[in-house]
Amino acid sequence: MSSFAVVGTGALGGFYGGLLARSGREVHFLMRSDASFVKTHGLRIDSKLGDFHLPQVNVYDNVHEMPKCDNIILALKSTQNHLLAQLLPPLLHERSIVLVLQNGLHVEQSALDIVGPGCVAGGCCFLCSNKVGPGHIRHLDYGKILMGPYQGLGDTETGPTMSRLNALQQEMIDAGIDCHTTESLTLARWRKLMWNIPFNGLSVILNSSTNKIMGHPASRALAESIIREVRQTACDCGHSIEPEFVQFMMDHTDEMVPYDSSMRLDFLAGRPIEVESIYGNALRSADRANVDAPILRTLYRQLTFLADNRASTAI
Amino acid sequence: MSSFAVVGTGALGGFYGGLLARSGREVHFLMRSDASFVKTHGLRIDSKLGDFHLPQVNVYDNVHEMPKCDNIILALKSTQNHLLAQLLPPLLHERSIVLVLQNGLHVEQSALDIVGPGCVAGGCCFLCSNKVGPGHIRHLDYGKILMGPYQGLGDTETGPTMSRLNALQQEMIDAGIDCHTTESLTLARWRKLMWNIPFNGLSVILNSSTNKIMGHPASRALAESIIREVRQTACDCGHSIEPEFVQFMMDHTDEMVPYDSSMRLDFLAGRPIEVESIYGNALRSADRANVDAPILRTLYRQLTFLADNRASTAI
Repeated sequence: MSSFAVVGTGALGGFYGGLLARSGREVHFLMRSDASFVKTHGLRIDSKLGDFHLPQVNVYDNVHEMPKCDNIILALKSTQNHLLAQLLPPLLHERSIVLVLQNGLHVEQSALDIVGPGCVAGGCCFLCSNKVGPGHIRHLDYGKILMGPYQGLGDTETGPTMSRLNALQQEMIDAGIDCHTTESLTLARWRKLMWNIPFNGLSVILNSSTNKIMGHPASRALAESIIREVRQTACDCGHSIEPEFVQFMMDHTDEMVPYDSSMRLDFLAGRPIEVESIYGNALRSADRANVDAPILRTLYRQLTFLADNRASTAI
Repeated sequence: MSSFAVVGTGALGGFYGGLLARSGREVHFLMRSDASFVKTHGLRIDSKLGDFHLPQVNVYDNVHEMPKCDNIILALKSTQNHLLAQLLPPLLHERSIVLVLQNGLHVEQSALDIVGPGCVAGGCCFLCSNKVGPGHIRHLDYGKILMGPYQGLGDTETGPTMSRLNALQQEMIDAGIDCHTTESLTLARWRKLMWNIPFNGLSVILNSSTNKIMGHPASRALAESIIREVRQTACDCGHSIEPEFVQFMMDHTDEMVPYDSSMRLDFLAGRPIEVESIYGNALRSADRANVDAPILRTLYRQLTFLADNRASTAI
């Protein structure tokens, strides 16, 4: 069994790290404000897979006190990626894998710039979970990870081999995580963007939950237009997605429980929102491929303005 | 001198009607909540052209008590146009002109449907004025009217002759109004939309004043993209606008005093906003001409949702 560092122990890092620790693996958690609370009280996960409590966990608020680990799970918000030059090097040995479990497109590039080729993978997480208190995670639904080697902006870099990722996948599965691998990480990321780009952004711009957006004909039509445009952009960037996936995303969203996107929760709480990793990076990919994406560009500009002028959005 | 009815005595109708009444013309004002106040206290206009007070004005809260007039100035918000079937017929004689001074595109169509061809004109107003109290208008800046015969959705209907409009124009000028005529009303309306579509909509969606929108690079770039798209849409619909007018609109907006669009004021006050006359009608014109207008369509859908879900927009 290999060792894990979890960088960023929030709703996502706490959930997956908690499952890995419960399975008996060596897991080292880096956290900020909750570190002393968790040292004393442990980590609590309420999950539809079964609640559990880990009374003794390896907790740190300083990366230099942590050991080097075989796998580094990067579960910070991507808005924190300017910290990676400090956070990653102390944790890596020669055979470490960095697994970036962040939202967006090419979010692995920051890690790749620091640690170099051969060891950076990314994963799309399909997870509904919230942090409800210090060291206390509530897992609401889903939980799948789809991970693959990160090959850089031009798909030309070397990631970890598939055999190394398949070994990591098996450890995840043994810990109870629904983990899958793909050789086409960028395609997987674009497919996930077909949900995140419409619903994260509209939930902030229209200040509404997903079911309200789906329930009004104007916003519903807009969401569907955005999904179509993201699919077309992905295809034009060389990542082919079947046309039927548009309708699948609409049906899937209709069937979801009323859900506030993490971007909306972050926005309402005054936390940074992941505009660059989701919208900015997708748009820059479109621009590199000389693809027009007018609605994506509009949403990007609206969200950038709103993120910078949050104080004035209270009516 | 001809007689005037002013239907809707708010910031716009009160200002122009007040100037016409001051000049000695017979003016009959239809208003709702302010009628009894104005009967007693008259109409007060604070204007950069000089303040004035009209102690005795012809005020009505019932259109059936009003006389037929030579000119009917329609100055209601276009969101009230469902009332026109009641309001217009009692005011018209055989030679009346209906002058529609509302925002948007093809806003004259509602009046044309009711009164028939030959008598409907429209005017673009370049006016900053607010109603600050009952019967009390504050004129802040500008005031030009550019009016022309309305020729219907397909530019095939007959409006009033230019000689009749020029006679009306002369009466306006004699009353101190900066009034101009054009044979291309639809072109004039599209040119004005190049300001209204970006700045009315973004002021609501981004909950910001015009100078904040111009002051942030993301929203500034978005505003310019919208202005370009509206110009291109107008051109593709057969209404040619010079490319330099895009930069002119940006420069003009940079030079404006910080100004809250009437759409934003209406939205914040819980009043209906003119989404259909400005956005819906422009988009339907684009659709009839088979022209793609993706940002316009996005704004239309966002504003429609926000107008219908106003209660939930408070953070």
